[in-house]
Amino acid sequence: MVGGAGGQARAAVVGTGLIGGSVLLRLRDAGLDVAGWDPDPATRRRVREQGVAAPDTVEEAVAGRGVVFLCGPLPTLPATVARVAAATDDRCVLTDVGSTKAEVATAAATQGLGHRFVPGHPMAGADRAGLDAATPALLDGAAWVLCPGPTGMPAFRRLAALLIDVFHARVVPMSAPEHDSAAALASHLPHLLAGALAGTVQRSALRDAVLALAAGSFSDGTRVAGGPPERTANMLLGNRERVLAELDAVRAYLDELAEALRAGDPGKLAGRLAEGRTARAALHGRAFTAHRREFPAAADHAGELAFLRELGAAGGHLTGCRVAGGAVTYTAHLPATPPLG
Amino acid sequence: MVGGAGGQARAAVVGTGLIGGSVLLRLRDAGLDVAGWDPDPATRRRVREQGVAAPDTVEEAVAGRGVVFLCGPLPTLPATVARVAAATDDRCVLTDVGSTKAEVATAAATQGLGHRFVPGHPMAGADRAGLDAATPALLDGAAWVLCPGPTGMPAFRRLAALLIDVFHARVVPMSAPEHDSAAALASHLPHLLAGALAGTVQRSALRDAVLALAAGSFSDGTRVAGGPPERTANMLLGNRERVLAELDAVRAYLDELAEALRAGDPGKLAGRLAEGRTARAALHGRAFTAHRREFPAAADHAGELAFLRELGAAGGHLTGCRVAGGAVTYTAHLPATPPLG
Repeated sequence: MVGGAGGQARAAVVGTGLIGGSVLLRLRDAGLDVAGWDPDPATRRRVREQGVAAPDTVEEAVAGRGVVFLCGPLPTLPATVARVAAATDDRCVLTDVGSTKAEVATAAATQGLGHRFVPGHPMAGADRAGLDAATPALLDGAAWVLCPGPTGMPAFRRLAALLIDVFHARVVPMSAPEHDSAAALASHLPHLLAGALAGTVQRSALRDAVLALAAGSFSDGTRVAGGPPERTANMLLGNRERVLAELDAVRAYLDELAEALRAGDPGKLAGRLAEGRTARAALHGRAFTAHRREFPAAADHAGELAFLRELGAAGGHLTGCRVAGGAVTYTAHLPATPPLG
Repeated sequence: MVGGAGGQARAAVVGTGLIGGSVLLRLRDAGLDVAGWDPDPATRRRVREQGVAAPDTVEEAVAGRGVVFLCGPLPTLPATVARVAAATDDRCVLTDVGSTKAEVATAAATQGLGHRFVPGHPMAGADRAGLDAATPALLDGAAWVLCPGPTGMPAFRRLAALLIDVFHARVVPMSAPEHDSAAALASHLPHLLAGALAGTVQRSALRDAVLALAAGSFSDGTRVAGGPPERTANMLLGNRERVLAELDAVRAYLDELAEALRAGDPGKLAGRLAEGRTARAALHGRAFTAHRREFPAAADHAGELAFLRELGAAGGHLTGCRVAGGAVTYTAHLPATPPLG
């Protein structure tokens, strides 16, 4: 547990919007001593109405805490990391929930915080924003990326254990650049495509007729276009190069589909669609096998780090993390096929 | 009611897959005398196991019926229309459930069936296919496009009344070409985009990591990529020109989003996303006002047809259709803003 010595973890959440608020409420429900802070005084009042301490300054909120979740908007994170680091003990674990990881990871490393800042990204969200949309269940069982670094292994272990314990998270360990590439396809492109489809309909002379006909495929395909445009724009801009690269890949695929369609070639068109169906079937149809690995807790961590990154790259996740008797023991789930080499 | 003279309608369904099977089961549950036919003998046996007559020939299945639903694959429809027309009385109403309407409407008109063939398209579906995936509730309350023609108004009225009565359908009247243009954006483009996104992930070196991270946006955005590739290919090919034209519009929108992203312009990017959000908000947030219109039942139908097509173009739908005392009375819902001119 974060907080050490078998004691109750003391936690803080900085930025109590949709994600931060949901983290806060879950930590409170789990019985942790938790404090919240938000730049908006009215939001702080609403945090207090939830029975959670919300001091007027971020320094008061994070002082003496064992773990701090940084949940403000993406562009504010590098400055917030510095401010919270200065107000906390060097043993305090810091993490964030931003949708891209390379930039904030570099900013934290530059500030000499690689040993206690663990970049994080829970894969969950909602179209609504703000504390009023937050719920303790929002992140329950979510895939939650953490980016362990060579100097931050003890911090990673403490945080992973807390997330599995309190949020039942499927902790996916990845390097920050690999996370950002995968997130471009897993999350950012779906937002871009939904925005383009919904925007095209908005400009269409047939808009009202289209909306009258719209059923499952349009409704599902544009759901995330209902989210706050500024939040989505920040997310895309925070991963700009990778999003543009993956957009090129999606457009090349659309070119192939359009070519088969223009040629009136049902076999070729169905073949391209079948490739996509394979990925879709793998999304919900994967079987997992359970694995268990032990490493010396005080070693140089190279083998441990390689195991973790290989696990994430293979589509697996941690289901447990325990440090005892000089060893760290991970339990993990891996997709059954293909097996991890 | 179809069948006339206050008697029970007698119906048939030709092609008892996902949609046809769902139509059949619903008609059966509503107490109609219904027969089914499918080219596959095993499927006919399963229809009989549902307590529904399923003769071995299509001619036996449709003989003496007042309404026949043609629910086979899109490319087979023109031939099936001719075959079923030859085996039924000239007062028997024929309709189909195909995802595009211009081609089958033209085929039926060419065969001199404009007075009794009413092109139809219920906006519902599922990723699975076949009778085993059919349920009586699949089409309940669905938007259901019907394409009334100048010579087929009595057939249209009888069918609309049946669909509203038995399926609680929101009947959307449209011309066949307008349906196909609207369906390209409401249904076909979502399938194309889902296929391109899922296919790109399938080919990506990061496939397994992407699937590990995939949450709501990816899952929703690729749902229809899980459907049978041949069915989707037929649907897209049946509306090829319009799908390609709308794909160009969506790609132009993606170009604008990419340009704002590449320029690092949060305001411009959020502005483009906000346009899409407006359409998305209109999808579920529309308020409707109730309307009622009466026409002489035996007139030349020009005013009635104009009213119906204007209703569909404005995003409205019929909630009732009744012929009595020499007049036809429609009740309809129209989006509250903008009002119908």
